[in-house]
Amino acid sequence: VSDRPSEFALIARLFAPLAVDPAALGLTDDVCLLKHQAGCDLLVTTDMLTEGVHFLAGDPPNLIAGKALRVNLSDLAAKGAKPVGYLLAIAVPRSREYAWLECFARGLSDDQERFGVSLLGGDTTATEGPLTLSVTALGHVPAGTMIRRSGARPGDGVYVSGTIGDAGAGLAVLQSRLGEALRGVATAALDVSDGLLADLGHIADVSKVRITVQADSIPRSDVLRRLWPDQDGIVRAATAGDDYEIAFTAASEGAAIEAGRKAGIAVTRIGWVGAGLGAVLVDSAGQEIPVKQPGFVHF
Amino acid sequence: VSDRPSEFALIARLFAPLAVDPAALGLTDDVCLLKHQAGCDLLVTTDMLTEGVHFLAGDPPNLIAGKALRVNLSDLAAKGAKPVGYLLAIAVPRSREYAWLECFARGLSDDQERFGVSLLGGDTTATEGPLTLSVTALGHVPAGTMIRRSGARPGDGVYVSGTIGDAGAGLAVLQSRLGEALRGVATAALDVSDGLLADLGHIADVSKVRITVQADSIPRSDVLRRLWPDQDGIVRAATAGDDYEIAFTAASEGAAIEAGRKAGIAVTRIGWVGAGLGAVLVDSAGQEIPVKQPGFVHF
Repeated sequence: VSDRPSEFALIARLFAPLAVDPAALGLTDDVCLLKHQAGCDLLVTTDMLTEGVHFLAGDPPNLIAGKALRVNLSDLAAKGAKPVGYLLAIAVPRSREYAWLECFARGLSDDQERFGVSLLGGDTTATEGPLTLSVTALGHVPAGTMIRRSGARPGDGVYVSGTIGDAGAGLAVLQSRLGEALRGVATAALDVSDGLLADLGHIADVSKVRITVQADSIPRSDVLRRLWPDQDGIVRAATAGDDYEIAFTAASEGAAIEAGRKAGIAVTRIGWVGAGLGAVLVDSAGQEIPVKQPGFVHF
Repeated sequence: VSDRPSEFALIARLFAPLAVDPAALGLTDDVCLLKHQAGCDLLVTTDMLTEGVHFLAGDPPNLIAGKALRVNLSDLAAKGAKPVGYLLAIAVPRSREYAWLECFARGLSDDQERFGVSLLGGDTTATEGPLTLSVTALGHVPAGTMIRRSGARPGDGVYVSGTIGDAGAGLAVLQSRLGEALRGVATAALDVSDGLLADLGHIADVSKVRITVQADSIPRSDVLRRLWPDQDGIVRAATAGDDYEIAFTAASEGAAIEAGRKAGIAVTRIGWVGAGLGAVLVDSAGQEIPVKQPGFVHF
């Protein structure tokens, strides 16, 4: 019922050409083999995307591929890591055309070149349900320099890269290598994926601090300012997911701004870290703005 | 519509207790952090399982968890690696009860203890379709000792652990650490997952050799011998998937059998490696037995 070649032909035709790193062993074994990188720690992260939840059946396959890769590279970038490569597990409905998979592989190939990574391994299987993807990405940081979520301290400033609320493709921040520039500067960091306020709430939770965000300092694109001009619009931007910008805390404002300048990406101070718990949004008078749902909820 | 706690509560209640290795960072960051292990190479493998294809909706959740882990540990074992830990990405239907997930986590916990591994990270998300799991497992081998698929040479013998055709849970061979005992002994190895003959065909392909398997030498359990007593039964056993035994080639029969003895698991010589291509089954007269489908086809 499908024009699709067998699993092995699929791997040989579409995926083996993406396995450019020798660590992938040409996809001929079930594993990839990473040699030790002197003086480095290895970071591993995984994210799963399902059709109907994280993307729609009609979305362009190359953009779905890019999203699957970028959500993971974004996690690595926020930790200050340099990406190395990724494994891809994909469950494909039996009716899915070969052309869809070809376009998907093209999207992977484009982003591999853009971000300097290689396919390292994976698994291709069938599903009775929606197409489901799982990417596991690997990256290196100089030993001991990984930026965690738990390092925010009262007195730190709170910063964000780029603009918030656009559900951007994460291209600029990933290409900027801001994460690497933030090693030794950021005290805590993560990528904005659940929504700015929810994600800063994660930092606040594990750092055991209170984060206050000044609503009118949140950087928004001109388009978004025109679309949602009032305070309600700021709340919407601060609680929308899928930004892939980096939010971080830092003790030195000068060093934070300078890291952005070096990486070639805007970094804006949006708040401060204090004693207490949770992340809150305040208006210019310092009054807390009530927020019903600080971010995207998966279930 | 569900008694299920939120994503974050799920992670805290069910998965954080499984993240016993410090590399998991208590699941508070989006990544795990692996320190360099001196003199070791790191192996990474991933396998995806979907409900309705790799397991059924009514299967006990703890056994599904065990299977997801074992298919990956089995890949590592066949390469001679010692498992370290795993990342788990899981897409859960919104209607799935909390009790199901609790039982699933208990299955992970049991196998973690059995095999000495830790949950290192993961992703929990929703799906509109069948439950889908992706496990990425990490393991170490002494640098340069990984057993590949491409090392089989004419003159080598062909061996398999345990018995074939039972779709066993892979417990014995994983606990035996046969893979580690085969370092420096096996010239090529893999775990039997697609079917013995199909998997030996993979070794033959990448090693560019011909593998001949003597049908009546294939070790089968007593139950299977009674169930399928004739030659057709041997073909069925040799082409059934999901065994998780290790099939390998070795130049020295003495060393191969001794590795099995050391690991405490039966190792049987089932054939030989010659010049040519492909894997074939022959009867006691040396006549090739025709096989329509050498193994499990995913699509």
